Amino acid sequence: MPELRRDPIVGRWVIIATERGKRPSDFKVDNLDTDAKNCPFCPGNEEFTPSEIIAYREKSTLPDKRGWWTRVVPNKFPALRIEGELDRQAVGIYDRMNGIGAHEVIIDSPDHFKTPSDLDNHYVEKIIWAYRDRIIDLKKDSRFKYVLIFKNYGQVAGASMSHPHSQLIATPIVPKRVKEELKGSLQYYRYKERCIFCDIIRQEIKTKERVVLESEHFLSFTPYASRFPFEVWIIPKKHKADFSSIASAEVVDLAKILKTTLAKIKNALSNPAYNYILHNIPATLREDLEDYHWHIEIIPKLVNVAGFEWGSGFYINPTSPEEAAMYLRES
Amino acid sequence: MPELRRDPIVGRWVIIATERGKRPSDFKVDNLDTDAKNCPFCPGNEEFTPSEIIAYREKSTLPDKRGWWTRVVPNKFPALRIEGELDRQAVGIYDRMNGIGAHEVIIDSPDHFKTPSDLDNHYVEKIIWAYRDRIIDLKKDSRFKYVLIFKNYGQVAGASMSHPHSQLIATPIVPKRVKEELKGSLQYYRYKERCIFCDIIRQEIKTKERVVLESEHFLSFTPYASRFPFEVWIIPKKHKADFSSIASAEVVDLAKILKTTLAKIKNALSNPAYNYILHNIPATLREDLEDYHWHIEIIPKLVNVAGFEWGSGFYINPTSPEEAAMYLRES
Repeated sequence: MPELRRDPIVGRWVIIATERGKRPSDFKVDNLDTDAKNCPFCPGNEEFTPSEIIAYREKSTLPDKRGWWTRVVPNKFPALRIEGELDRQAVGIYDRMNGIGAHEVIIDSPDHFKTPSDLDNHYVEKIIWAYRDRIIDLKKDSRFKYVLIFKNYGQVAGASMSHPHSQLIATPIVPKRVKEELKGSLQYYRYKERCIFCDIIRQEIKTKERVVLESEHFLSFTPYASRFPFEVWIIPKKHKADFSSIASAEVVDLAKILKTTLAKIKNALSNPAYNYILHNIPATLREDLEDYHWHIEIIPKLVNVAGFEWGSGFYINPTSPEEAAMYLRES
Repeated sequence: MPELRRDPIVGRWVIIATERGKRPSDFKVDNLDTDAKNCPFCPGNEEFTPSEIIAYREKSTLPDKRGWWTRVVPNKFPALRIEGELDRQAVGIYDRMNGIGAHEVIIDSPDHFKTPSDLDNHYVEKIIWAYRDRIIDLKKDSRFKYVLIFKNYGQVAGASMSHPHSQLIATPIVPKRVKEELKGSLQYYRYKERCIFCDIIRQEIKTKERVVLESEHFLSFTPYASRFPFEVWIIPKKHKADFSSIASAEVVDLAKILKTTLAKIKNALSNPAYNYILHNIPATLREDLEDYHWHIEIIPKLVNVAGFEWGSGFYINPTSPEEAAMYLRES
């Protein structure tokens, strides 16, 4: 059973793989297998993944068979286990609990070589629906406080399979960064009685210098204090705390702006590795919360400088967000 | 002039290089130049760096000439500028100040190929003295709230020069991670009236399972909630908030344990890239602070998984610290 351990100083929870732990010799870097023939995420190879949780598929096709557009399966090597109790306890001055949670893979599409920026819109819409449906389902399990959805694209961004996919981790704790956002935006709300994200959106639309794309419902922009070069956020223009209450018209619009933003990053930066993370309210908070605003953070993996930055929380960004936005608008 | 910008949501300050910004084509990865002949950090090439700030050198040798053991010079491409005023101001809802600070390079030794784990003890001692002397000097400048000292070893850890060196950045703000540590350890102190780091040291020495090395004055151990595989901390066993008050006998002991710990990491993990960061009290706090405890955090760069972890603050560590400590003890 993996363990969740709490850093006693800053309160950060970490998943520790206590069973099948990596030994020193396991850290040699293998190249990603780009061979579609043996890929467990490709159509026809459904038997090589655990049974699907949900899939959007052509009528009269069967589960775990061909005919799907987007398919969600349990991670074969999960960081957390779905069965069991949390069993919170002390270890001397430390705190631990069992590594209970869900770890799922959202296979973006049947195409081994197409990333979201290359896929037809309707595929990207299905990926977004899959995110929504899995969040709604997992929120019903009271053990889970947060559902984290992210994509690692490219090996240096942490992908271990080349077939484009996203991942979902449902956790019994709220991730530290989300807690900090909630705390910061609540402080602002108490002071100003306005959502800080809404204020950011207004200022960005007014000054335009950091806007990458604007659509009917969404804004894609490079944040003022970007930690990383070409960091881009996508955010609904109208206040909404909970991603899972997204409407159909918004899904269509989000698919378009997400796809186009990723295509611009791909063009401007020669197909870089990247991560994106959906920032959403915790499962325990009301969906009409006035001081939080869901959004997607996209981080291209361009620099190696992250070492001391992890350790200090102090970032040096070699490209101003204004320049990054300009390059992306032109791409 | 580089800029410091504040993230309006979580309050993190970021350095934005607004002048000589990196364009998209600048992110192609160059391999590290391993040629010692043209290395500006090698003896005989002193003219290729800015004039030295301090150096420990053989008697009757001249500044910026051969004969030094450890040499500190300004960074030729500084992330922050030493001259000027902070000029804090609002930009709409955002906050900025001028990128004022010091950015220095501590050239570990004249040897282009020897890392601290290979150097003779007296060289490593001089590196530690250089850290101390630069902190004491820069603390006198009231614009600087913090002096951050770190080493990037290897290209994937962010090193851009192959000649072993450390870096120093003096900043007008306290880095976020240090603030969090100070806040967490103060909370603990208020509750328990004990330093949390002292409690951690007592428990680690008692259980021994995460101890890598123990010397007269220092403990080297893998922290209970390690974020990264083979993460190791080195900490003085006796309570001390301020690194810069280190005594001579402690420098000798720290050089030995730092060198040996790094050698163990090198042996166990086939010479991995790594970062280490000195965590110290801010320049503005009293050196006899009872609730903080300086230490060095060493992070080998073994995994690529950092992408979503940056975004969520939620880490998955594939090697338990108990196993990591066992492998390191045996190396």
